[in-house]
Amino acid sequence: MIRTAVVIAAGGSGVRMGGDTPKQFRPLAGRPVLMHSVERFHTALPDAQIIITLPVGESARWEELCRKYDFAIAHSITHGGATRCESVRNALEICAGCDYIAVHDGARPLVSVELILRLLDDAVAYDAAIPVVAPVDSFRIIEGDIESDSGRCIDRSRLRAVQTPQIFAAPLLRAAYAAPAEGAFTDDASLVERLGVAVHLSRGEPFNIKITHQADFAIAEALLRPD
Amino acid sequence: MIRTAVVIAAGGSGVRMGGDTPKQFRPLAGRPVLMHSVERFHTALPDAQIIITLPVGESARWEELCRKYDFAIAHSITHGGATRCESVRNALEICAGCDYIAVHDGARPLVSVELILRLLDDAVAYDAAIPVVAPVDSFRIIEGDIESDSGRCIDRSRLRAVQTPQIFAAPLLRAAYAAPAEGAFTDDASLVERLGVAVHLSRGEPFNIKITHQADFAIAEALLRPD
Repeated sequence: MIRTAVVIAAGGSGVRMGGDTPKQFRPLAGRPVLMHSVERFHTALPDAQIIITLPVGESARWEELCRKYDFAIAHSITHGGATRCESVRNALEICAGCDYIAVHDGARPLVSVELILRLLDDAVAYDAAIPVVAPVDSFRIIEGDIESDSGRCIDRSRLRAVQTPQIFAAPLLRAAYAAPAEGAFTDDASLVERLGVAVHLSRGEPFNIKITHQADFAIAEALLRPD
Repeated sequence: MIRTAVVIAAGGSGVRMGGDTPKQFRPLAGRPVLMHSVERFHTALPDAQIIITLPVGESARWEELCRKYDFAIAHSITHGGATRCESVRNALEICAGCDYIAVHDGARPLVSVELILRLLDDAVAYDAAIPVVAPVDSFRIIEGDIESDSGRCIDRSRLRAVQTPQIFAAPLLRAAYAAPAEGAFTDDASLVERLGVAVHLSRGEPFNIKITHQADFAIAEALLRPD
Protein backbone atom coordinates (compact mmCIF):
# COMPACT_ATOMS: atom_id res chain seq x y z
CA MET A 1 0.00 0.00 0.00
CA ILE A 2 1.19 3.49 -0.82
CA ARG A 3 1.46 5.60 2.32
CA THR A 4 0.56 9.21 1.69
CA ALA A 5 0.79 12.41 3.70
CA VAL A 6 -1.12 15.55 2.79
CA VAL A 7 0.11 19.01 3.78
CA ILE A 8 -2.69 21.56 3.56
CA ALA A 9 -1.05 24.97 3.47
CA ALA A 10 -3.34 27.36 5.32
CA GLY A 11 -0.69 29.46 7.01
CA GLY A 12 -1.47 32.66 5.14
CA SER A 13 -3.24 35.55 6.79
CA GLY A 14 -5.43 36.19 3.73
CA VAL A 15 -4.62 39.87 3.99
CA ARG A 16 -5.37 40.49 0.33
CA MET A 17 -9.04 40.04 1.18
CA GLY A 18 -9.23 42.33 4.21
CA GLY A 19 -11.11 41.54 7.42
CA ASP A 20 -9.68 39.90 10.53
CA THR A 21 -10.70 36.30 9.82
CA PRO A 22 -8.24 34.47 7.55
CA LYS A 23 -10.08 33.45 4.36
CA GLN A 24 -9.51 29.72 4.97
CA PHE A 25 -11.63 30.03 8.15
CA ARG A 26 -14.52 31.85 6.52
CA PRO A 27 -17.69 29.91 5.75
CA LEU A 28 -18.34 28.53 2.31
CA ALA A 29 -21.65 26.75 1.74
CA GLY A 30 -22.11 26.28 5.47
CA ARG A 31 -18.62 25.51 6.78
CA PRO A 32 -15.09 26.92 6.71
CA VAL A 33 -13.22 26.77 3.41
CA LEU A 34 -10.43 24.74 5.00
CA MET A 35 -12.81 21.97 6.08
CA HIS A 36 -13.90 21.48 2.47
CA SER A 37 -10.27 21.12 1.39
CA VAL A 38 -9.49 18.61 4.15
CA GLU A 39 -12.63 16.59 3.44
CA ARG A 40 -11.81 16.21 -0.24
CA PHE A 41 -8.46 14.64 0.63
CA HIS A 42 -9.92 12.46 3.35
CA THR A 43 -12.49 11.13 0.85
CA ALA A 44 -9.86 10.48 -1.80
CA LEU A 45 -7.21 9.04 0.55
CA PRO A 46 -8.88 7.85 3.78
CA ASP A 47 -5.60 6.52 5.23
CA ALA A 48 -3.49 9.57 4.49
CA GLN A 49 -1.87 11.51 7.31
CA ILE A 50 -3.22 15.07 7.10
CA ILE A 51 -1.19 18.03 8.37
CA ILE A 52 -2.58 21.54 8.33
CA THR A 53 -0.31 24.57 8.55
CA LEU A 54 -2.09 27.37 10.40
CA PRO A 55 -1.15 31.01 10.91
CA VAL A 56 0.70 31.58 14.20
CA GLY A 57 -1.81 32.21 16.97
CA GLU A 58 -4.76 30.74 15.07
CA SER A 59 -4.85 27.18 16.42
CA ALA A 60 -7.32 28.02 19.22
CA ARG A 61 -9.71 29.52 16.65
CA TRP A 62 -9.37 26.46 14.41
CA GLU A 63 -10.00 24.06 17.30
CA GLU A 64 -13.05 26.07 18.25
CA LEU A 65 -14.31 25.79 14.65
CA CYS A 66 -13.70 22.01 14.67
CA ARG A 67 -15.86 21.70 17.79
CA LYS A 68 -18.54 23.99 16.42
CA TYR A 69 -18.81 22.08 13.14
CA ASP A 70 -18.25 18.59 14.65
CA PHE A 71 -15.27 18.23 12.36
CA ALA A 72 -14.05 14.71 13.05
CA ILE A 73 -11.37 14.09 10.42
CA ALA A 74 -8.10 13.29 12.19
CA HIS A 75 -5.32 15.75 11.40
CA SER A 76 -2.21 17.35 12.85
CA ILE A 77 -1.56 21.05 13.11
CA THR A 78 1.66 22.92 12.59
CA HIS A 79 2.21 26.61 12.76
CA GLY A 80 2.83 28.53 9.59
CA GLY A 81 6.18 30.18 9.18
CA ALA A 82 6.81 33.62 7.74
CA THR A 83 6.47 32.23 4.19
CA ARG A 84 4.64 29.37 2.50
CA CYS A 85 7.98 27.62 2.09
CA GLU A 86 8.72 27.80 5.82
CA SER A 87 5.20 26.54 6.63
CA VAL A 88 5.59 23.48 4.44
CA ARG A 89 9.07 22.81 5.84
CA ASN A 90 7.57 22.81 9.37
CA ALA A 91 4.88 20.38 8.24
CA LEU A 92 7.43 18.01 6.68
CA GLU A 93 9.04 17.61 10.09
CA ILE A 94 5.95 15.87 11.40
CA CYS A 95 5.19 13.71 8.32
CA ALA A 96 6.27 10.20 9.30
CA GLY A 97 6.72 7.03 7.28
CA CYS A 98 5.10 8.16 4.06
CA ASP A 99 6.03 7.35 0.45
CA TYR A 100 4.35 10.33 -1.20
CA ILE A 101 3.56 13.80 0.04
CA ALA A 102 0.84 16.00 -1.43
CA VAL A 103 0.97 19.74 -0.83
CA HIS A 104 -2.32 21.57 -1.33
CA ASP A 105 -3.51 25.16 -0.95
CA GLY A 106 -6.06 25.30 1.86
CA ALA A 107 -7.87 27.93 -0.20
CA ARG A 108 -8.64 25.47 -3.05
CA PRO A 109 -11.71 23.78 -1.59
CA LEU A 110 -13.12 22.63 -4.94
CA VAL A 111 -10.41 20.11 -5.79
CA SER A 112 -12.09 16.88 -6.90
CA VAL A 113 -11.43 13.39 -5.60
CA GLU A 114 -10.68 12.35 -9.22
CA LEU A 115 -8.02 15.04 -9.51
CA ILE A 116 -6.35 13.97 -6.26
CA LEU A 117 -6.25 10.31 -7.34
CA ARG A 118 -5.02 11.14 -10.84
CA LEU A 119 -2.21 13.26 -9.44
CA LEU A 120 -1.17 10.53 -7.03
CA ASP A 121 -1.04 8.03 -9.91
CA ASP A 122 1.12 10.45 -11.87
CA ALA A 123 3.39 11.07 -8.87
CA VAL A 124 3.91 7.32 -8.53
CA ALA A 125 4.78 7.13 -12.23
CA TYR A 126 6.96 10.27 -12.43
CA ASP A 127 8.04 11.09 -8.81
CA ALA A 128 6.71 14.65 -9.15
CA ALA A 129 3.34 15.69 -10.60
CA ILE A 130 1.40 18.96 -10.62
CA PRO A 131 -2.02 19.82 -12.10
CA VAL A 132 -2.12 22.45 -14.86
CA VAL A 133 -4.80 23.99 -17.07
CA ALA A 134 -4.58 25.93 -20.31
CA PRO A 135 -5.69 29.52 -19.68
CA VAL A 136 -8.63 31.16 -21.45
CA ASP A 137 -7.19 34.70 -21.54
CA SER A 138 -4.28 36.00 -23.56
CA PHE A 139 -1.21 36.91 -21.52
CA ARG A 140 1.63 39.40 -21.56
CA ILE A 141 4.88 39.47 -19.73
CA ILE A 142 6.42 42.61 -18.29
CA GLU A 143 10.06 42.96 -19.26
CA GLY A 144 12.43 45.32 -17.47
CA ASP A 145 10.77 47.57 -14.87
CA ILE A 146 8.06 45.59 -13.07
CA GLU A 147 5.93 48.76 -12.76
CA SER A 148 6.05 49.25 -16.50
CA ASP A 149 2.84 49.81 -18.46
CA SER A 150 3.99 47.75 -21.39
CA GLY A 151 4.61 44.06 -21.89
CA ARG A 152 5.37 41.53 -24.56
CA CYS A 153 2.66 39.19 -25.82
CA ILE A 154 3.36 35.53 -25.11
CA ASP A 155 2.05 32.46 -26.91
CA ARG A 156 -1.03 31.45 -24.93
CA SER A 157 -1.07 27.96 -26.39
CA ARG A 158 2.17 27.25 -24.50
CA LEU A 159 1.03 28.67 -21.18
CA ARG A 160 -0.29 26.56 -18.29
CA ALA A 161 -1.77 27.78 -15.01
CA VAL A 162 -0.45 25.72 -12.11
CA GLN A 163 -2.76 24.45 -9.37
CA THR A 164 -2.46 22.14 -6.39
CA PRO A 165 -2.26 19.42 -5.10
CA GLN A 166 1.36 18.99 -6.09
CA ILE A 167 2.45 15.46 -5.22
CA PHE A 168 5.99 14.18 -4.82
CA ALA A 169 7.92 11.09 -3.79
CA ALA A 170 8.59 11.87 -0.12
CA PRO A 171 12.42 11.72 -0.27
CA LEU A 172 12.39 14.08 -3.23
CA LEU A 173 10.25 16.73 -1.54
CA ARG A 174 12.34 16.47 1.63
CA ALA A 175 15.54 16.91 -0.36
CA ALA A 176 14.04 19.94 -2.12
CA TYR A 177 13.17 21.60 1.18
CA ALA A 178 16.53 20.69 2.71
CA ALA A 179 18.46 22.52 -0.02
CA PRO A 180 19.07 26.18 0.78
CA ALA A 181 16.43 28.33 -0.90
CA GLU A 182 17.25 31.64 -2.48
CA GLY A 183 14.66 33.95 -3.93
CA ALA A 184 10.89 33.51 -3.84
CA PHE A 185 9.29 30.20 -4.76
CA THR A 186 5.57 30.30 -5.39
CA ASP A 187 5.17 26.53 -5.53
CA ASP A 188 6.78 23.30 -4.44
CA ALA A 189 7.45 22.12 -7.96
CA SER A 190 9.91 24.98 -8.48
CA LEU A 191 11.85 23.88 -5.40
CA VAL A 192 11.96 20.28 -6.60
CA GLU A 193 13.21 21.30 -10.03
CA ARG A 194 16.27 22.94 -8.53
CA LEU A 195 17.44 19.40 -7.79
CA GLY A 196 17.46 18.71 -11.53
CA VAL A 197 14.30 16.58 -11.36
CA ALA A 198 11.61 16.97 -14.05
CA VAL A 199 8.10 17.72 -12.83
CA HIS A 200 5.26 16.04 -14.72
CA LEU A 201 2.41 18.30 -15.81
CA SER A 202 -0.89 16.50 -15.22
CA ARG A 203 -4.39 17.55 -16.26
CA GLY A 204 -5.90 19.99 -13.75
CA GLU A 205 -9.47 21.27 -13.49
CA PRO A 206 -10.72 24.69 -14.59
CA PHE A 207 -12.74 25.09 -11.40
CA ASN A 208 -10.09 24.08 -8.91
CA ILE A 209 -9.86 27.77 -8.07
CA LYS A 210 -7.91 29.45 -5.30
CA ILE A 211 -10.14 31.61 -3.15
CA THR A 212 -8.43 34.98 -3.19
CA HIS A 213 -10.98 37.77 -3.51
CA GLN A 214 -14.20 38.20 -1.56
CA ALA A 215 -16.28 37.48 -4.67
CA ASP A 216 -14.56 34.10 -5.02
CA PHE A 217 -16.80 32.88 -2.21
CA ALA A 218 -19.88 33.52 -4.36
CA ILE A 219 -18.16 31.83 -7.28
CA ALA A 220 -17.19 28.77 -5.23
CA GLU A 221 -20.70 28.49 -3.81
CA ALA A 222 -22.15 28.62 -7.30
CA LEU A 223 -19.80 25.80 -8.32
CA LEU A 224 -20.66 23.72 -5.26
CA ARG A 225 -24.38 23.96 -5.97
CA PRO A 226 -25.83 20.92 -7.77
CA ASP A 227 -26.95 21.68 -11.35
CA MET B 1 -16.63 65.32 -28.32
CA ILE B 2 -14.83 62.03 -28.80
CA ARG B 3 -16.67 59.81 -31.28
CA THR B 4 -16.43 56.17 -30.36
CA ALA B 5 -17.36 52.92 -32.06
CA VAL B 6 -17.64 49.63 -30.22
CA VAL B 7 -17.13 46.30 -31.96
CA ILE B 8 -18.58 43.46 -29.91
CA ALA B 9 -17.01 40.27 -31.20
CA ALA B 10 -19.62 37.54 -30.93
CA GLY B 11 -18.81 35.67 -34.13
CA GLY B 12 -17.63 32.51 -32.42
CA SER B 13 -19.70 29.36 -32.44
CA GLY B 14 -18.93 28.63 -28.78
CA VAL B 15 -18.16 25.05 -29.73
CA ARG B 16 -15.94 24.52 -26.70
CA MET B 17 -19.09 24.52 -24.61
CA GLY B 18 -21.16 22.08 -26.66
CA GLY B 19 -24.85 22.47 -27.47
CA ASP B 20 -26.31 24.13 -30.55
CA THR B 21 -26.89 27.62 -29.15
CA PRO B 22 -23.77 29.81 -29.27
CA LYS B 23 -22.84 30.77 -25.70
CA GLN B 24 -23.31 34.49 -26.35
CA PHE B 25 -27.02 33.80 -27.02
CA ARG B 26 -27.61 31.73 -23.90
CA PRO B 27 -29.41 33.34 -20.97
CA LEU B 28 -27.49 34.80 -18.06
CA ALA B 29 -29.55 36.21 -15.20
CA GLY B 30 -32.63 36.42 -17.41
CA ARG B 31 -31.30 37.53 -20.78
CA PRO B 32 -28.68 36.56 -23.36
CA VAL B 33 -25.04 37.08 -22.45
CA LEU B 34 -24.52 39.33 -25.46
CA MET B 35 -27.23 41.75 -24.32
CA HIS B 36 -25.43 42.30 -21.03
CA SER B 37 -22.21 43.11 -22.89
CA VAL B 38 -23.96 45.57 -25.24
CA GLU B 39 -25.82 47.25 -22.37
CA ARG B 40 -22.64 47.89 -20.41
CA PHE B 41 -21.17 49.79 -23.36
CA HIS B 42 -24.38 51.67 -24.06
CA THR B 43 -24.48 52.80 -20.42
CA ALA B 44 -20.83 53.87 -20.47
CA LEU B 45 -20.89 55.49 -23.93
CA PRO B 46 -24.51 56.33 -24.89
CA ASP B 47 -23.47 57.97 -28.18
CA ALA B 48 -21.17 55.23 -29.37
CA GLN B 49 -21.89 53.35 -32.57
CA ILE B 50 -22.25 49.67 -31.64
CA ILE B 51 -21.44 46.90 -34.12
CA ILE B 52 -21.97 43.26 -33.27
CA THR B 53 -20.24 40.51 -35.23
CA LEU B 54 -22.45 37.43 -35.34
CA PRO B 55 -21.77 33.91 -36.57
CA VAL B 56 -22.82 33.38 -40.19
CA GLY B 57 -26.48 32.33 -40.32
CA GLU B 58 -27.27 33.55 -36.79
CA SER B 59 -28.71 36.99 -37.48
CA ALA B 60 -32.32 35.74 -37.64
CA ARG B 61 -31.92 34.13 -34.23
CA TRP B 62 -30.41 37.30 -32.78
CA GLU B 63 -33.21 39.47 -34.21
CA GLU B 64 -35.74 37.08 -32.74
CA LEU B 65 -34.03 37.40 -29.34
CA CYS B 66 -34.05 41.20 -29.62
CA ARG B 67 -37.81 41.12 -30.17
CA LYS B 68 -38.38 38.60 -27.39
CA TYR B 69 -36.43 40.64 -24.84
CA ASP B 70 -37.52 44.07 -26.12
CA PHE B 71 -33.90 44.89 -26.69
CA ALA B 72 -33.96 48.50 -27.85
CA ILE B 73 -30.30 49.55 -27.95
CA ALA B 74 -29.45 50.62 -31.50
CA HIS B 75 -26.72 48.55 -33.11
CA SER B 76 -25.46 47.23 -36.43
CA ILE B 77 -24.79 43.62 -37.28
CA THR B 78 -22.03 42.18 -39.35
CA HIS B 79 -21.33 38.56 -40.06
CA GLY B 80 -18.38 36.93 -38.41
CA GLY B 81 -15.62 35.65 -40.63
CA ALA B 82 -13.77 32.39 -40.25
CA THR B 83 -11.58 33.90 -37.51
CA ARG B 84 -11.93 36.60 -34.87
CA CYS B 85 -9.57 38.74 -36.91
CA GLU B 86 -11.73 38.47 -40.03
CA SER B 87 -14.86 39.26 -37.98
CA VAL B 88 -13.37 42.45 -36.61
CA ARG B 89 -12.10 43.44 -40.05
CA ASN B 90 -15.67 43.11 -41.40
CA ALA B 91 -16.95 45.26 -38.56
CA LEU B 92 -14.36 47.98 -39.21
CA GLU B 93 -15.78 48.41 -42.69
CA ILE B 94 -19.02 49.72 -41.27
CA CYS B 95 -17.58 51.93 -38.51
CA ALA B 96 -17.94 55.47 -39.76
CA GLY B 97 -16.51 58.77 -38.56
CA CYS B 98 -15.17 57.62 -35.23
CA ASP B 99 -12.02 58.72 -33.39
CA TYR B 100 -11.63 55.64 -31.18
CA ILE B 101 -12.67 52.04 -31.64
CA ALA B 102 -13.20 49.61 -28.76
CA VAL B 103 -13.13 45.88 -29.44
CA HIS B 104 -14.80 43.72 -26.82
CA ASP B 105 -15.46 40.01 -26.40
CA GLY B 106 -19.22 39.43 -26.48
CA ALA B 107 -18.66 36.72 -23.88
CA ARG B 108 -17.40 39.21 -21.25
CA PRO B 109 -20.74 40.47 -19.94
CA LEU B 110 -19.40 41.60 -16.55
CA VAL B 111 -17.22 44.46 -17.80
CA SER B 112 -17.93 47.52 -15.66
CA VAL B 113 -18.82 50.99 -16.85
CA GLU B 114 -15.81 52.29 -14.87
CA LEU B 115 -13.48 49.94 -16.72
CA ILE B 116 -14.82 51.03 -20.12
CA LEU B 117 -14.39 54.73 -19.27
CA ARG B 118 -10.92 54.21 -17.80
CA LEU B 119 -9.79 52.36 -20.90
CA LEU B 120 -11.13 55.07 -23.17
CA ASP B 121 -9.25 57.70 -21.16
CA ASP B 122 -6.08 55.65 -21.50
CA ALA B 123 -6.64 55.14 -25.22
CA VAL B 124 -6.97 58.91 -25.65
CA ALA B 125 -3.71 59.37 -23.74
CA TYR B 126 -1.73 56.53 -25.34
CA ASP B 127 -3.52 55.66 -28.64
CA ALA B 128 -3.78 51.99 -27.63
CA ALA B 129 -4.90 50.64 -24.25
CA ILE B 130 -5.83 47.18 -22.99
CA PRO B 131 -6.98 46.01 -19.53
CA VAL B 132 -4.76 43.54 -17.69
CA VAL B 133 -4.81 41.82 -14.30
CA ALA B 134 -2.09 40.06 -12.31
CA PRO B 135 -2.88 36.35 -12.12
CA VAL B 136 -3.41 34.47 -8.85
CA ASP B 137 -1.97 31.13 -10.00
CA SER B 138 1.62 30.25 -10.79
CA PHE B 139 2.34 29.63 -14.46
CA ARG B 140 4.57 27.48 -16.60
CA ILE B 141 5.46 27.67 -20.23
CA ILE B 142 5.82 24.65 -22.49
CA GLU B 143 9.03 24.75 -24.49
CA GLY B 144 9.62 22.59 -27.53
CA ASP B 145 6.86 20.06 -28.25
CA ILE B 146 3.48 21.63 -27.43
CA GLU B 147 2.17 18.24 -26.25
CA SER B 148 5.03 17.94 -23.79
CA ASP B 149 4.32 17.12 -20.14
CA SER B 150 7.00 19.44 -18.85
CA GLY B 151 7.34 23.18 -18.76
CA ARG B 152 9.51 25.92 -17.37
CA CYS B 153 8.32 28.00 -14.42
CA ILE B 154 7.88 31.68 -15.23
CA ASP B 155 7.94 34.65 -12.90
CA ARG B 156 4.30 35.22 -11.98
CA SER B 157 4.94 38.75 -10.78
CA ARG B 158 5.70 39.73 -14.40
CA LEU B 159 2.68 38.03 -15.92
CA ARG B 160 -0.55 39.82 -16.84
CA ALA B 161 -3.80 38.28 -18.09
CA VAL B 162 -5.24 40.33 -20.94
CA GLN B 163 -8.94 41.21 -21.11
CA THR B 164 -11.15 43.38 -23.25
CA PRO B 165 -12.26 46.05 -24.15
CA GLN B 166 -9.14 46.92 -26.07
CA ILE B 167 -9.43 50.51 -27.28
CA PHE B 168 -7.44 52.16 -30.06
CA ALA B 169 -7.23 55.40 -32.00
CA ALA B 170 -9.34 54.51 -35.06
CA PRO B 171 -6.66 55.13 -37.73
CA LEU B 172 -4.25 52.92 -35.79
CA LEU B 173 -6.64 49.97 -35.54
CA ARG B 174 -7.54 50.33 -39.21
CA ALA B 175 -3.89 50.33 -40.18
CA ALA B 176 -3.28 47.25 -38.05
CA TYR B 177 -6.06 45.36 -39.78
CA ALA B 178 -5.01 46.56 -43.22
CA ALA B 179 -1.50 45.13 -42.83
CA PRO B 180 -1.23 41.53 -44.03
CA ALA B 181 -1.60 39.15 -41.07
CA GLU B 182 0.47 36.03 -40.72
CA GLY B 183 0.04 33.52 -37.95
CA ALA B 184 -2.65 33.53 -35.27
CA PHE B 185 -3.41 36.67 -33.28
CA THR B 186 -5.46 36.17 -30.16
CA ASP B 187 -6.07 39.86 -29.59
CA ASP B 188 -6.16 43.19 -31.34
CA ALA B 189 -3.27 44.60 -29.35
CA SER B 190 -0.90 42.09 -30.93
CA LEU B 191 -1.95 43.24 -34.39
CA VAL B 192 -1.42 46.88 -33.47
CA GLU B 193 2.04 46.19 -32.07
CA ARG B 194 3.22 44.84 -35.39
CA LEU B 195 3.08 48.44 -36.57
CA GLY B 196 5.71 49.32 -33.98
CA VAL B 197 3.21 51.05 -31.70
CA ALA B 198 3.37 50.49 -27.93
CA VAL B 199 0.18 49.29 -26.25
CA HIS B 200 -0.58 50.72 -22.81
CA LEU B 201 -1.46 48.20 -20.11
CA SER B 202 -4.34 49.58 -18.03
CA ARG B 203 -5.84 48.20 -14.85
CA GLY B 204 -8.39 45.47 -15.59
CA GLU B 205 -10.88 43.78 -13.25
CA PRO B 206 -10.54 40.30 -11.75
CA PHE B 207 -14.18 39.52 -12.50
CA ASN B 208 -14.31 40.71 -16.09
CA ILE B 209 -14.33 37.02 -17.01
CA LYS B 210 -14.82 35.46 -20.42
CA ILE B 211 -17.64 32.94 -20.39
CA THR B 212 -16.09 29.79 -21.78
CA HIS B 213 -17.26 26.76 -19.84
CA GLN B 214 -20.82 25.87 -18.87
CA ALA B 215 -20.03 26.49 -15.18
CA ASP B 216 -19.00 30.07 -16.03
CA PHE B 217 -22.71 30.88 -16.28
CA ALA B 218 -23.17 30.00 -12.60
CA ILE B 219 -20.07 32.03 -11.75
CA ALA B 220 -21.25 35.05 -13.71
CA GLU B 221 -24.72 34.86 -12.14
CA ALA B 222 -23.14 34.74 -8.68
CA LEU B 223 -21.13 37.85 -9.55
CA LEU B 224 -24.17 39.67 -10.92
CA ARG B 225 -26.19 39.06 -7.77
CA PRO B 226 -26.23 41.98 -5.34
CA ASP B 227 -24.30 41.26 -2.09
